[in-house]
Amino acid sequence: MALLVLIFSIFITLSLSPMITSQKLHPLDPLTMSEITLVQTIVKKAYPTTTTTTTTTSHNNLTFHYVGLDEPEKRTVLKWQSRPKTVRIPRRALVHARYNKQTLELIVDLSTRSLVSQQVHVGHGYPVYSFDEQTKASDLPMSYKPFIESIKKRGLNMSHVVCSTLSVGWFGEDEKGMSPREIKVQCFYTEKTTNLYLRPIEGITMVVDLDNIKIVDYQDRIRVPVPKAEGTEYQMSKQRPPFGPRLSAVASESPNGPGFKLDGHTIKWANWGFHVGFDSRVGPVISLASIYDIEKHKYRRVLYRGYVSEMFVPYMDPTEEVYFRTYFDCGEDGFGQSAVSLEPLADCPHNAVFMDAYYADENGNPVQISNAFCIFEQHAGHIMWRHTESGLHEGEVREVRQDVSLVVRMVSTVGNYDYINDWEFKPSGSIKVGVGLTGVLATKGVPHTHVDQIKEDLYGALLAENTIATHHDHFLNYYLDLDVDGQENSFVKTDLVTKRVSDHSSPRKSYWTITKKTAKTELEARLNVGLRPSEFAVVNPNIKTKVGNEIGYRLMPGSATIPLLTSDDYPQIRAPFTNYNIWVTPYNKSEKWAGGKFVSQSRGEDNLAIWSLRNRKIENKDIVLWYTIGFHHVPTQEEYPVMPTLTGGFELRPTNFFERNPVLKSQQPAPSVEPSSPVTAATPEERNVRDIEPGSPVSNSPDVTVSVTNEQLAHII
Amino acid sequence: MALLVLIFSIFITLSLSPMITSQKLHPLDPLTMSEITLVQTIVKKAYPTTTTTTTTTSHNNLTFHYVGLDEPEKRTVLKWQSRPKTVRIPRRALVHARYNKQTLELIVDLSTRSLVSQQVHVGHGYPVYSFDEQTKASDLPMSYKPFIESIKKRGLNMSHVVCSTLSVGWFGEDEKGMSPREIKVQCFYTEKTTNLYLRPIEGITMVVDLDNIKIVDYQDRIRVPVPKAEGTEYQMSKQRPPFGPRLSAVASESPNGPGFKLDGHTIKWANWGFHVGFDSRVGPVISLASIYDIEKHKYRRVLYRGYVSEMFVPYMDPTEEVYFRTYFDCGEDGFGQSAVSLEPLADCPHNAVFMDAYYADENGNPVQISNAFCIFEQHAGHIMWRHTESGLHEGEVREVRQDVSLVVRMVSTVGNYDYINDWEFKPSGSIKVGVGLTGVLATKGVPHTHVDQIKEDLYGALLAENTIATHHDHFLNYYLDLDVDGQENSFVKTDLVTKRVSDHSSPRKSYWTITKKTAKTELEARLNVGLRPSEFAVVNPNIKTKVGNEIGYRLMPGSATIPLLTSDDYPQIRAPFTNYNIWVTPYNKSEKWAGGKFVSQSRGEDNLAIWSLRNRKIENKDIVLWYTIGFHHVPTQEEYPVMPTLTGGFELRPTNFFERNPVLKSQQPAPSVEPSSPVTAATPEERNVRDIEPGSPVSNSPDVTVSVTNEQLAHII
Repeated sequence: MALLVLIFSIFITLSLSPMITSQKLHPLDPLTMSEITLVQTIVKKAYPTTTTTTTTTSHNNLTFHYVGLDEPEKRTVLKWQSRPKTVRIPRRALVHARYNKQTLELIVDLSTRSLVSQQVHVGHGYPVYSFDEQTKASDLPMSYKPFIESIKKRGLNMSHVVCSTLSVGWFGEDEKGMSPREIKVQCFYTEKTTNLYLRPIEGITMVVDLDNIKIVDYQDRIRVPVPKAEGTEYQMSKQRPPFGPRLSAVASESPNGPGFKLDGHTIKWANWGFHVGFDSRVGPVISLASIYDIEKHKYRRVLYRGYVSEMFVPYMDPTEEVYFRTYFDCGEDGFGQSAVSLEPLADCPHNAVFMDAYYADENGNPVQISNAFCIFEQHAGHIMWRHTESGLHEGEVREVRQDVSLVVRMVSTVGNYDYINDWEFKPSGSIKVGVGLTGVLATKGVPHTHVDQIKEDLYGALLAENTIATHHDHFLNYYLDLDVDGQENSFVKTDLVTKRVSDHSSPRKSYWTITKKTAKTELEARLNVGLRPSEFAVVNPNIKTKVGNEIGYRLMPGSATIPLLTSDDYPQIRAPFTNYNIWVTPYNKSEKWAGGKFVSQSRGEDNLAIWSLRNRKIENKDIVLWYTIGFHHVPTQEEYPVMPTLTGGFELRPTNFFERNPVLKSQQPAPSVEPSSPVTAATPEERNVRDIEPGSPVSNSPDVTVSVTNEQLAHII
Repeated sequence: MALLVLIFSIFITLSLSPMITSQKLHPLDPLTMSEITLVQTIVKKAYPTTTTTTTTTSHNNLTFHYVGLDEPEKRTVLKWQSRPKTVRIPRRALVHARYNKQTLELIVDLSTRSLVSQQVHVGHGYPVYSFDEQTKASDLPMSYKPFIESIKKRGLNMSHVVCSTLSVGWFGEDEKGMSPREIKVQCFYTEKTTNLYLRPIEGITMVVDLDNIKIVDYQDRIRVPVPKAEGTEYQMSKQRPPFGPRLSAVASESPNGPGFKLDGHTIKWANWGFHVGFDSRVGPVISLASIYDIEKHKYRRVLYRGYVSEMFVPYMDPTEEVYFRTYFDCGEDGFGQSAVSLEPLADCPHNAVFMDAYYADENGNPVQISNAFCIFEQHAGHIMWRHTESGLHEGEVREVRQDVSLVVRMVSTVGNYDYINDWEFKPSGSIKVGVGLTGVLATKGVPHTHVDQIKEDLYGALLAENTIATHHDHFLNYYLDLDVDGQENSFVKTDLVTKRVSDHSSPRKSYWTITKKTAKTELEARLNVGLRPSEFAVVNPNIKTKVGNEIGYRLMPGSATIPLLTSDDYPQIRAPFTNYNIWVTPYNKSEKWAGGKFVSQSRGEDNLAIWSLRNRKIENKDIVLWYTIGFHHVPTQEEYPVMPTLTGGFELRPTNFFERNPVLKSQQPAPSVEPSSPVTAATPEERNVRDIEPGSPVSNSPDVTVSVTNEQLAHII
């Protein structure tokens, strides 16, 4: 086996040596602007472009829908990582394009400027929508006579109408054949508001043929009042008094600059090192996350690659205008290309560093998203660990370490919703993954102005007059290629099991203990969390701690949400990755997205659930953990006209990965400012004498034990 | 009804007028030092004290075990709140004492300096242990010959031995009679370490009669090696290189001082107002939490009173030395009197304000806990709400508000464990309650030095040579007397229910909708969370929003943990409040503690589960929500020798409480420092030209839209 690997590695090295590689780039760096342009040039050369122009729009026979890094083989990346000077890795791009109404899957080698693979996709499903075609589709109604007529009949003014695209999904149409590539269009009224989603023009639904940019179906089914503009605006400049509370400012500085080092896309901070990539489909990609072990004097790998592999957002209204709203935000809209520029001092704190991102538009041109990422140290006032010991002969001992973490943030705005994606690294070894849901709720117009008028299910909550916010779900699937101190890992479920003491050997009648089970094949690792008291871990069965525990990382789930759609319903057939919270597969470079490769109008034929049916072996293999978290969302009036962030997430936490607490000897910063006496509130007795306000130091501050000497502080890794 | 209330209030006012009241105090303020002293004087006068002195110790016939505010009737407090100048409230103390080996329950009126109620407790169960008697019990072995002999036999040195007390629980002893008041004592070896819990002297268990401070049972059952000191120390001053990462400093200032006002124990911050009390048994008590509604121009009450009413920490080892470890940290140890002094810049951030607390010792003397509370604004870099809108004709709109919250923190150290108790108030109306578990694990000594040697269940994890950390649970019950905009509230469970579309009226085959059910009586509201997709809310059925939704607050549970002990096991019989995550009772001043009043050696006769069996009406009543969160804890090596904080909690979130997003018009602070250009990382292209490090501003910063004008900022409530 070792010999085989060696031979293979020589082959790789030799076969790569003549290629031109971008030495300045990390092999997992996202494609640069110039690389995207190069992809465009190479593809356009192979697929000559013609443009069709109609009176209303023009479109090309070649359109780009996904241009991303073709991730090098994992073993090659790892080899490069250990010998970056000698191992060279080709830069390749993976392209999904439409050419003459066919879907192409291309691999472009940027070093040789050649197409190394060209395939025509023949199954169902279409690539990610481009923004350009969505814009064109949204513009069609503006010059579409039946629509203009419908708007007129409603007494509305076309100049305030904006339209938006919505994926069509699949509902059993053309069961035996191919569906045309389509998108739905619905419209909103922006008179006196920027908050279009709260002023739906109800009853009108159009279907656009995307390959011809043409309205192919038009329905004006019902007419209900457009909800009024009053109260929908969220821009501060448009608000009138009374205003809400003014929150206090914090003027913070990190006197020594950021505590992390950013070298290209590689970050080193505290005991962590990792790579932050970007992908137009999935957004932020964390790679090669390793943590320095001071006892083993080396970085130990935790996560080879992690990202949101798919999202599923089904709405729960079966009526004509809403039933199809069953979005896949990665595979249909591109969670990465939906990233928005972050606002300094609001989206991210004062100490954030920003990073741009690039994706390809429909024509293959690079598009920059400024400040797509922010990276910052989070000083939230949490306690890393502490103990006060008062049971000693020699008096009280108190040791406390404050916690600091490093956060990588991206916000993706997919239509009305804004998703805040946080990857938080903690010195204790935890990776906390957070998702925040904010933005605007999807609503529909109804005639009702009061709950008392509602006699049948309106499939949502009445948030304002004429405004129903539809019940819906959010499911996010995270691809987590954990490499716990090496590639060969196993997935272990630890059940907590009640034991009865029936032999009167103890005054106790019961206790619980643990039973561990290693999943041997994929189907054994398909699990829902929360049903039983269990812990879930990826372990390295080949490495043990000194006392013999298997080293591992635990998944601490944050939500036990499972789908409520029936399993024979079309949206659920397309999103079976939501059926289980946990899936484990053997690493396979081609299995990247839980919802499948071509998700738009997919039919459930290619996805994580299907791959897993092969029931491959996963014990002591290079495995990938796929974790689905979900939110069932019953809207409330507090979420109108814009939603306070609703947060969820999960944690990857070391479990016997370290011999001992890895932050036992972490060093607290020497206070860079004179540590002011703590402000202590007055006792009632004191208040009788003098009127102390917080802010004025008082004398009864405790002695602060400085437990770190200067000499100790000098010792840094 | 109104008349009755009026008559009552006149009665109260008249009956109080001749009394001397502490006008400077809030009716819910904890007892002051001088008030505690006054309680002591009054009680000692009524119960003459004698002291028994033996060769080893001395104890009084009168001991104080709980001295706390006797909470005034709720209606009286509310009346006072609306007319603080005219309504005077008596200051009364509730005292649990032992006098001549009987348990007394006394009510002391501080205004009249009299005992207004004196009862002898005749049932099972004893009051909270005093620290003094625990110290005396822990000292007994030091001069106890059999123990000295046992230590000698083990080759250990008495000068390094410390002992600790452990509650005895109840395991069916004296089924028909009374148990003597007892505590167990076990010992530890502190040679070369302060971390006593990791050096247990295994096999020796003593029982101390607490009323006589005398060892009544001595067992030296087994002898196993004391785990070695190496690696157990957590004090920074004792660590040797290599050190862990040095975390970066943040020098922060709130240029205008704290953003909150502290008047005695009353806090006003942003749109919140509330009272922070202290109780020696339960710790921090949040009262009268109200939020200002800018639309209704008034504060609206949310939480009348909230605190940890009981904890239950059972260990899962049935053997002689561990089986009884089934702690009730409030009712046995006093979660409040276990509060420790917080360390500035470590336990709490730079901008924290500290507050002291007082409790009564065994003799009734006031004891000060300096810096028992800290209160700080948390600037964690979270996003309060945001939206980027790119679907408008007039270009992109971006609105973002950063989030700030206010945290009230107390840390209670109960023996080996440190519990971080956070109450976090958010301007959006949420109250997030957090509990962090840190400190040292409870361990037992075993002969094993490697997992491979373990052939049978050792009831825990081998964390180091000879060291098993025992499996255990933590259950915390929160008393949450929500008053959602008034006292009369109902508890509503909202189930999410799948509906099938079988009439082909829609291309969809299913969706979910909601069904709401109001609990009419107590037993209908006993619920476990996580089993079904449900939401839980306390609503005010008498107040609706303009469009007709019932106003409410939602409980967003943070854990679905339920007990794994069998229901006939003694510890579980004593802690049946853990059987359900949710309980709802009608407000009853005497029902304060979920585990019952006298918890030590209790037998399950008086507790939340028993009270609830009356199955009282809870619809449109003044109700109390009791919520139990739990942790099952399988220890890991990372938790040795001190545990990185493990965090849990829950959220109370407004649900149709407000007409709209209450932070829509919240005002962001004007940056008090020149907003530096955001630091943007270099693109790979740029890196080829210049080597940019984070910290050096680069020019491609986006235009920051300042969306608040100065005039707008001038409008503050």
